[in-house]
Amino acid sequence: MKKNLKTELTEVARKAKIACGSLALLSAAFKNAVLKDMAAALLSKKSVILKANRKDISLAKSKGKAFIDRLSLNALRIKQMADSLLDIAKLKDPVGEVMRAWDTPGGLSIQKVRVPIGVVAIVYESRPNVTADCIGLCFKSGNSVILRGGSQALNSNLAIFNCLKEVMQKHNLAEGAINLIATTNRQAIDYLLKLNDYIDLVIPRGGEELIKKVVSSSSIPVIKHYKGICHVYVDEEADLNMAQNICLNAKLQRPGVCNAMESMLVHRDVAARFLPGMLKKFREAGVEIRGCAFTQKIANSSNLVRRATEKDYRTEYSDLILSVKVVDDLDAAIAHINEYGSHHSDSIVTDNNNSAEKFLKQIDSACVYLNASTRFTDGGQFGMGAEIGISTDKLHARGPMGLEELTTYKYLVYGSGQVRV
Amino acid sequence: MKKNLKTELTEVARKAKIACGSLALLSAAFKNAVLKDMAAALLSKKSVILKANRKDISLAKSKGKAFIDRLSLNALRIKQMADSLLDIAKLKDPVGEVMRAWDTPGGLSIQKVRVPIGVVAIVYESRPNVTADCIGLCFKSGNSVILRGGSQALNSNLAIFNCLKEVMQKHNLAEGAINLIATTNRQAIDYLLKLNDYIDLVIPRGGEELIKKVVSSSSIPVIKHYKGICHVYVDEEADLNMAQNICLNAKLQRPGVCNAMESMLVHRDVAARFLPGMLKKFREAGVEIRGCAFTQKIANSSNLVRRATEKDYRTEYSDLILSVKVVDDLDAAIAHINEYGSHHSDSIVTDNNNSAEKFLKQIDSACVYLNASTRFTDGGQFGMGAEIGISTDKLHARGPMGLEELTTYKYLVYGSGQVRV
Repeated sequence: MKKNLKTELTEVARKAKIACGSLALLSAAFKNAVLKDMAAALLSKKSVILKANRKDISLAKSKGKAFIDRLSLNALRIKQMADSLLDIAKLKDPVGEVMRAWDTPGGLSIQKVRVPIGVVAIVYESRPNVTADCIGLCFKSGNSVILRGGSQALNSNLAIFNCLKEVMQKHNLAEGAINLIATTNRQAIDYLLKLNDYIDLVIPRGGEELIKKVVSSSSIPVIKHYKGICHVYVDEEADLNMAQNICLNAKLQRPGVCNAMESMLVHRDVAARFLPGMLKKFREAGVEIRGCAFTQKIANSSNLVRRATEKDYRTEYSDLILSVKVVDDLDAAIAHINEYGSHHSDSIVTDNNNSAEKFLKQIDSACVYLNASTRFTDGGQFGMGAEIGISTDKLHARGPMGLEELTTYKYLVYGSGQVRV
Repeated sequence: MKKNLKTELTEVARKAKIACGSLALLSAAFKNAVLKDMAAALLSKKSVILKANRKDISLAKSKGKAFIDRLSLNALRIKQMADSLLDIAKLKDPVGEVMRAWDTPGGLSIQKVRVPIGVVAIVYESRPNVTADCIGLCFKSGNSVILRGGSQALNSNLAIFNCLKEVMQKHNLAEGAINLIATTNRQAIDYLLKLNDYIDLVIPRGGEELIKKVVSSSSIPVIKHYKGICHVYVDEEADLNMAQNICLNAKLQRPGVCNAMESMLVHRDVAARFLPGMLKKFREAGVEIRGCAFTQKIANSSNLVRRATEKDYRTEYSDLILSVKVVDDLDAAIAHINEYGSHHSDSIVTDNNNSAEKFLKQIDSACVYLNASTRFTDGGQFGMGAEIGISTDKLHARGPMGLEELTTYKYLVYGSGQVRV
């Protein structure tokens, strides 16, 4: 049985590799037509998809409310999935772009050209919309995709996948172009992550546990979309009204996402003026505060502000909880963020240009903000269109990862008989 | 003892991480001045370095001639190391380059800016010049570097390292900026490759064994500089004189390097015209031919052409041996190269534009050539300057990897109080 699963997965990956040769050659116009057909198919198969989703939900009843919410589909969410495919159709096709072209003194003409990566495997958790999004993004960027979703969403994922697969077949696209591993056997991931002869890139999307598991067992390169421990630092020269607006937005606009603020740092010299009003606003919004001794002192009651532990400053709450720390100066803020943060998105609020430049230069994060909420870190807000995730890695792709980041390049060298002397 | 080594390596990596914060801020002019001082220091310490090298050579007497050659330094080679540092000083500093800048409809100003990767570890074998090259390239690109060279070159590497370290100290550069792991304990590599909290990238340079070991035991992202099984395909519409020149050059100009031709493919319809003269030239040059049945038939004597095995077509000889295969058509050539090659450098010789375009598009290699020798794949020939290696990976860097490929990017987002609605 185990052996069969391994053989089966190898065969899936091998076919995906074969398919990507032809995917790389498709024109943008053709790919866009297929994406539009996919969007239409999702809408026309709505009832089938919702029926499959109800099955998943009834099996997951024992899970928490947040889990059920992530898992649940409805007419609006299916419309959003279809719209997302239409948006991908509108994005510029990165494949074939000449990134640079030059001639060598010896008369060679060199072009650095954008090409698909090849086969991308995506390991994700309970959101079924990821299935359609990833198929759309990988197809548009010319990559074969192998999806392995959460077992609780299997029926929903299969219904979405089968609907899109039919469209691929109608257009005579290679069999291995899109793939869903439809088994709940947990060993499937382990097998998949060793198929480095066929799979070029693995993208895990989900909680810390999932990502750690993928990183530790993969022999294929992984781009991590890891936790977001994002900070806002309120400088001594901050506009304190602006700071309050930004902090409220960064924490509350959508507390469960990776670019929400988890930790607020405040310069010692403005703490007494800034914190009381700020903490009051947070309390009114139902946010639990975990602060340093200085924060507790200013809050004037340790009942209202729990003492933050070392661990708090390293925690992504994804919830209505905020850690707060008063720091001595800008250097201390920078050191804290680089040490405790997750290199995702961090913001400084200040009117001092020098402090701003220092922060922007020295913070080692994918996105560093001046006087703005960290909530802007995403492909749509950045104008890149739909994203396959937000990379907290430094290699290949950093920050929002869209179509362009799903490509690599090769050098085409045009000669007329040149040999090396 | 084991514990001490682990603690010691962790401390080296931690200091390297701290140092990269300040390296990232250095100006190009300052870095270039340091590089020039380094070059001068290598020349002035020539006798010390040569003495250390003689010690290594006397300890390595039992090794083969090729090994001793790679290990050996002399006045010319030290001059070349110094020149290489001067060349690096002349290259454009990639750090701080604004790769793209745009404004969002909401009034945010976004800059995508090139920044150093952080800490780069390089694991290499017996060539001592790698020590100076890697220090120069990493320093210029703002990265801290941790070097782990082959144990047979330890005395030479230490002499070079100490010489350059002195220059760094003279300029008050952070202690952790350049590091050499000066132990012959083989476990050092295993420990090093698990320090993913501090090291951002590992680059192995050396033979297949070394690279496999690094890939299998690293929890840090690795960019491989793997074997080069490079092909020249002689098409049915090739200029056969040009083809002969290119094949001779690709095989013979420097047979031991990764971009030399290991396998020659010939279209069936020109095999009878092309092969006899070509094989004669190769024989005169002392090249052993391992061919398919068709090649043997044309050579008219299986004594002269040994039958190639499956394994031959997957072998990087790095020597005066060549595998030859007659193929039915262009598609068969492309399929063979993508299946048996190492995705490094492959060339087609043809006068037919359609065949050329098909080959350039469908060959899945870092560098794909038309009517030119594969020997041009290197940073110097491509006009990128010195290289840290030639990547056969697809992620982050592909092909010659120079200063730019030793950087990543981050997004700087300038706002004026923007919050997300």
